[in-house]
Amino acid sequence: MRTILVVGIGTGSPEHLTVAAIDALNRADVLFVPEKGVSKAGLANVRRAIIERFVRREDPRIIGYAVPRRDAKNPEYEQGVAEWHQALSDIFALLVADVPEGGTGAFLVWGDPGLYDSTLRILELVPQSITVEVIPGITAVQALTAAHGIALNRIGQPVVITTGRQLGTVEVDTVVMLDGRMAFLDADPDLDIYWGAYLGTPDELLIAGRLGDVADRIATTRQVAREEHGWIMDTYLLRKPQ
Amino acid sequence: MRTILVVGIGTGSPEHLTVAAIDALNRADVLFVPEKGVSKAGLANVRRAIIERFVRREDPRIIGYAVPRRDAKNPEYEQGVAEWHQALSDIFALLVADVPEGGTGAFLVWGDPGLYDSTLRILELVPQSITVEVIPGITAVQALTAAHGIALNRIGQPVVITTGRQLGTVEVDTVVMLDGRMAFLDADPDLDIYWGAYLGTPDELLIAGRLGDVADRIATTRQVAREEHGWIMDTYLLRKPQ
Ligand SMILES: C[S@@+](CC[C@H](N)C(=O)[O-])C[C@H]1O[C@@H](n2cnc3c(N)ncnc32)[C@H](O)[C@@H]1O
Ligand SMILES: C[S@@+](CC[C@H](N)C(=O)[O-])C[C@H]1O[C@@H](n2cnc3c(N)ncnc32)[C@H](O)[C@@H]1O
Repeated sequence: MRTILVVGIGTGSPEHLTVAAIDALNRADVLFVPEKGVSKAGLANVRRAIIERFVRREDPRIIGYAVPRRDAKNPEYEQGVAEWHQALSDIFALLVADVPEGGTGAFLVWGDPGLYDSTLRILELVPQSITVEVIPGITAVQALTAAHGIALNRIGQPVVITTGRQLGTVEVDTVVMLDGRMAFLDADPDLDIYWGAYLGTPDELLIAGRLGDVADRIATTRQVAREEHGWIMDTYLLRKPQ
Repeated sequence: MRTILVVGIGTGSPEHLTVAAIDALNRADVLFVPEKGVSKAGLANVRRAIIERFVRREDPRIIGYAVPRRDAKNPEYEQGVAEWHQALSDIFALLVADVPEGGTGAFLVWGDPGLYDSTLRILELVPQSITVEVIPGITAVQALTAAHGIALNRIGQPVVITTGRQLGTVEVDTVVMLDGRMAFLDADPDLDIYWGAYLGTPDELLIAGRLGDVADRIATTRQVAREEHGWIMDTYLLRKPQ
């Protein structure tokens, strides 16, 4: 029996690491670091900085693994994801096999393992019998509201977390993630937006205001930053003004 | 000018503290610890344990303050909350006055300061000119999904975070917080529920299953635990079975 720790590492700052996460990284015999290709080298670097700073073992075993690309052109979104997960589970099975019997491996997961992350679902597909333990991490949602110094929700009011793809008319305060298409450009210009990119990193960008007033500036800033860094991750909150 | 740090401390485990939060507690000249009366002594104890374990100053100044009760009987919910915030801001103004000019005070906030917490809104009401800095923390939502070993959202799907008071028909996967009235008892019995109380603490309780099968067990468990501890905090996720 092997133990697999799924460790939330926060969203860009090594300072997001929790005491439990540091502990988990130090309990692991093997650390698994995803590598999404050069364009997201920034992310792999954060993970390596975290390992260097917090892992006290002399010589931790670090295994990088390539993450296959999801076929974004597959018209069947669900099926495309399912196939992608199947491909990843074959890779995960090989990684798990690298953990000594009775030993412990750890996946370093961006943000929190529960929020728009597939590590837990993919681990359910590996053939080995494993014990999975999840260590929560700071999400992009908390990094966003902390950076803007605002509360996520109005007093006693609900909030929706969704993707750019799913964003419709904003009736309820809404956080948007995974938005490559800049869905905010089609939203009601009278909404307020709190936008953040590279949250938690030294490159953090923040823009807030009435959507109609700042949407163009966000689009341009996003474009320029994306070209400069080769990648971008951004998150935003949309809500009706009070 | 004074700096006020609003520090998310997680939801019960000192191990939820992030490196940034530990840092913030050590930067503060004064630490503010809310005391909600004997019934929630458990929470004040967690805060004190955190200070003891992580604050390296010889002699940190810790100021406890009583949190006035909100008049839950006020039929005007919004007005009741507004009056309660006004009363709290008078207390906060006194606390801020205790921070030396040019110095730093820190509020230890349960979970994340952005999620169903009023510290930021109340600080906006104090008359002094202050710089506010927010340090994100692990929320009850992440503590819940980590403890159950599940993802918060289905692949690419939205999730709603709401209160017991606001829970209606569950169309979208929904996390319910602040639910004293056990709103789940009125929800569709064919939903799946993932319930957790005292998350992150040694007293953590977890129940999951088809709502119709486990609702009574949750209600009883909740009742018994509440009597034993004198208080309870619970959170749950409701979703349609796959
Ligand atoms: C695959 S999801 C992973 C989310 C992550 N598990 C979390 O807890 O935040 C990636 C999305 O998270 C958001 N995100 C992650 N890190 C971010 C950062 N540092 N700044 C802004 N957004 C970020 C973006 O919306 C991005 O498209
Ligand atoms: C006033 S809100 C504060 C939420 C907090 N700021 C957070 O980030 O989780 C209090 C509610 O949070 C949830 N909660 C907080 N701590 C919890 C715990 N340890 N276990 C279960 N639920 C908890 C409960 O739903 C409770 O009614």
